[in-house]
Order: sequence, then structure tokens, then C-alpha cells
Amino acid sequence: MAVLYLVPSPLSDGDWQNVLPAKVFRVLTTTGYFIVENIRTARRFLKLVNKNIDIDSLKFFVLNKHTEYSAAEGYLNPVVEGHDIALITEAGCPGIADPGAEIVRIAHKKNIKVVPISGPSSVILALMASGLNGQDFAFNGYLPIKHNERLKAISKLEEKAVRLKQTQIFIETPYRNDQMLKSLLKACSPVTMLCIAADLTGDNEFIATKTIEQWKREIPDLNKKPAIFLLGT
Amino acid sequence: MAVLYLVPSPLSDGDWQNVLPAKVFRVLTTTGYFIVENIRTARRFLKLVNKNIDIDSLKFFVLNKHTEYSAAEGYLNPVVEGHDIALITEAGCPGIADPGAEIVRIAHKKNIKVVPISGPSSVILALMASGLNGQDFAFNGYLPIKHNERLKAISKLEEKAVRLKQTQIFIETPYRNDQMLKSLLKACSPVTMLCIAADLTGDNEFIATKTIEQWKREIPDLNKKPAIFLLGT
Repeated sequence: MAVLYLVPSPLSDGDWQNVLPAKVFRVLTTTGYFIVENIRTARRFLKLVNKNIDIDSLKFFVLNKHTEYSAAEGYLNPVVEGHDIALITEAGCPGIADPGAEIVRIAHKKNIKVVPISGPSSVILALMASGLNGQDFAFNGYLPIKHNERLKAISKLEEKAVRLKQTQIFIETPYRNDQMLKSLLKACSPVTMLCIAADLTGDNEFIATKTIEQWKREIPDLNKKPAIFLLGT
Repeated sequence: MAVLYLVPSPLSDGDWQNVLPAKVFRVLTTTGYFIVENIRTARRFLKLVNKNIDIDSLKFFVLNKHTEYSAAEGYLNPVVEGHDIALITEAGCPGIADPGAEIVRIAHKKNIKVVPISGPSSVILALMASGLNGQDFAFNGYLPIKHNERLKAISKLEEKAVRLKQTQIFIETPYRNDQMLKSLLKACSPVTMLCIAADLTGDNEFIATKTIEQWKREIPDLNKKPAIFLLGT
């Protein structure tokens, strides 16, 4: 029976075998149909994993926030006809903070078997490496951009982190990291723990967990580095 | 500079290269010190990854819920002296739903570099494969065991899932799965979405997302299978 594979991709440059299991090679070289966010980067990833791959023989469907439901539904026709399909994300795990979940939901409706492959998740890597509570945690995606709304959102997350002992995880676009850090240092109590994980799995990986008070003494430069933030106690 | 590696381990039997990157081989064969939950299973894992490994030359420290803080602190002495240490979990990612977080927290206090390796996380694999909201989700660990308290906890999670559009994830010990499923079918609204992911990455992997109403019509046998549950809308 044909299946929908969910294939993670690297978070940074470098050898894919540092972050992805060998199984990814097998899946990507025996699958002819791909659902991707961006064809150019998907082709580059396929070439990275198997430089002898015959890219021109492969069929790509583009899934992004502009894709209509009816089109997405059609993308799964090859599985129904007996061909495996792989969903590849731009970075990390499909369906986590990207538009992949919709296609998986359709697959379940059609009783198509879904097979997730393990790989790098910035949320999990950051949480593992934070030392903060990994028994109870929440991922909140992006916080509001406007200054006052952001401060309010941070205070709410901090309150939850303390009251529920639930680690609160969120992300920011790289060019806004420095503003995010300023807001965190302003909104949070000096004793709250903040973990910053930047450039995960990359050459300049930076992971540190400190109190807000400690961070204030030495503010790191996060500009343009993909980063993830965790608040805990 | 020596580092503390956080090394995931497989969730099921079978070829480790189906779920772990080749980097794990390199880390485990160049590291002489290990912090583990259980020495016997850690040795088995090391042999699985490298059958030629000289187990008797390796040094193991046991970290579990009975380990005292002062002992755990001492486990990191080899890093301070210039030797890499690897923290290995029983299954999945260290620090996520296991006692590993404490040692990582101590490492940050001592300014020891922490390097997480990517690998299988049942939380992320289940969420990817569920088709439920992966932009906002919470992992809640175990729910209460007592019948009435569990029903209350489930209702509260369902309410959160709906109100916040936040996928609610939780686990159960395998022999209580069937009771958990009964409680879910009793407590939740017929239109709530429930994903059940059992035996992830294993030969009998089972992942399905349906409404509570649909699940009631065909109740799966989850007895003794490691499973993870997700509520969403």
C-alpha cells in the first residue's frame, strides 16, 4: 500500500547525515512524487541527499499558505493510485510551524497511511538543550509584533510558565530577534529562566539558559540568526 | 573544549539508522563517559550502534529520579577536565519526559557547552503525523490515574484545544491505554478530533486522526502498545 511520507529537512548547512537518519536517503530515492513548499530548495535538498538523483523524472506539487484546499486534495491522487508521496518541509519537521498539517489531515480523511520520519525539530532540540521542564511544555509559534502587545503576550507566557510549571516556547523571525530579547528583558521578572537557542545544528550553534538578570549583564547578538526562545522556572 | 552531548535513542526495535543520524555513531564511539538511566539498556544501545565498541573501557553514571543533586553535579566533572560526556535516554530525546533536564540545567550553571543531537521524539512524530495544529501545541505528560480526575483533566484539555486552537498532547503507560481511550470517548464532544499514535517507528506503527464519534464506531486495541494521544479541532 502506498503511503504519505513526512520527511524532515536540515535546519542548517552541512552534512545532512549529522541530523537526518539514513532512512531519508532510501525514502527520497524510491519516491517519485513530492509535496513541497518551494521547488527550488526541495530540489537542492534532494541533490544534497543523493547527488545522482534524476531530478527531471520527479513530480513536484507546491503546498504553501496560498494553496487551495481542492488543489491540496488532488496532490494525494498518486497515493490513491499506488505511488508513495513525500512531504518535505523547508526546514525541520513537516506540519510543525508550517503549512504541512493540512495535507496530513486530508490524508487521514482519505484513510491514507501516514509515515513520519524522525529528524531535527528546533522546538525539541532547544527544549532538550535548555534544561527547562520537558515534562510539560507549550509551543506558541510567533508572538505579536507590536511593542505593547508583545510585552503583554510575554507577561502572559511568563505567568503560565510559573503557575503551570510549563515551559513556554516561541520563535521570532531572525531580523526581529534583538527586539524580542529587549522585550523579554523588559517584561520578565529577574529570576525567570530564559533559554536562547540560536543557529541550532549549525556551525555557530549557541544555546544558553540563564536568569533574566544574568542575561541583562551580557546581551548576545542574535541579529539574523534563526533563534528559539524558552521561558521557564 | 569538551561538551555534554544529548543523544536520543530509538523508540522501537530495528535498525537504528531508520531513526538516528550517522552522527550518533561518531559521538558514541569517541566519547568515554556516559550518563544513563539504566546501564544495561545503555550498553545494549551502544552495542547496537557499534558492535565493535569496547564497553568495558567506558564509564557510566546512573541518573534517575533517585539521583541526588550533589551526585548529578559530580557526573559533569569529566567535562570540566576535558572529556566529552554523552547523556543517553531510555527512549527518545533526553530531557523530554525523563530525568535528563536536571543534568542539562547543571551544565548551563557550570557554563558547559551542551550539544543536542536530533533524533526520534514521540511528541513530534505524533504531532507531524496527526494533521492537527502544529503551530500551537502543548505536551502535558501523564494525566491523573483516578477515573473522575482523569475525566476532568480530559475535559479541561479539550476546552483548551478548542478555545486556544492549541493541540493538546499527552501519554499513558501502555497497560492503561484502553482505559484512557474509554475516558476520552466518554469525556469529549463527538466532533472533537483525536489522534492516536501507537508503536511509533515500530513494525506495527498505527497513526490515525478521527472525530470522537468516528472512534466510537471502531475502537482500536491499544493494550500494551506505547501510545500518545492528541486532542484538537
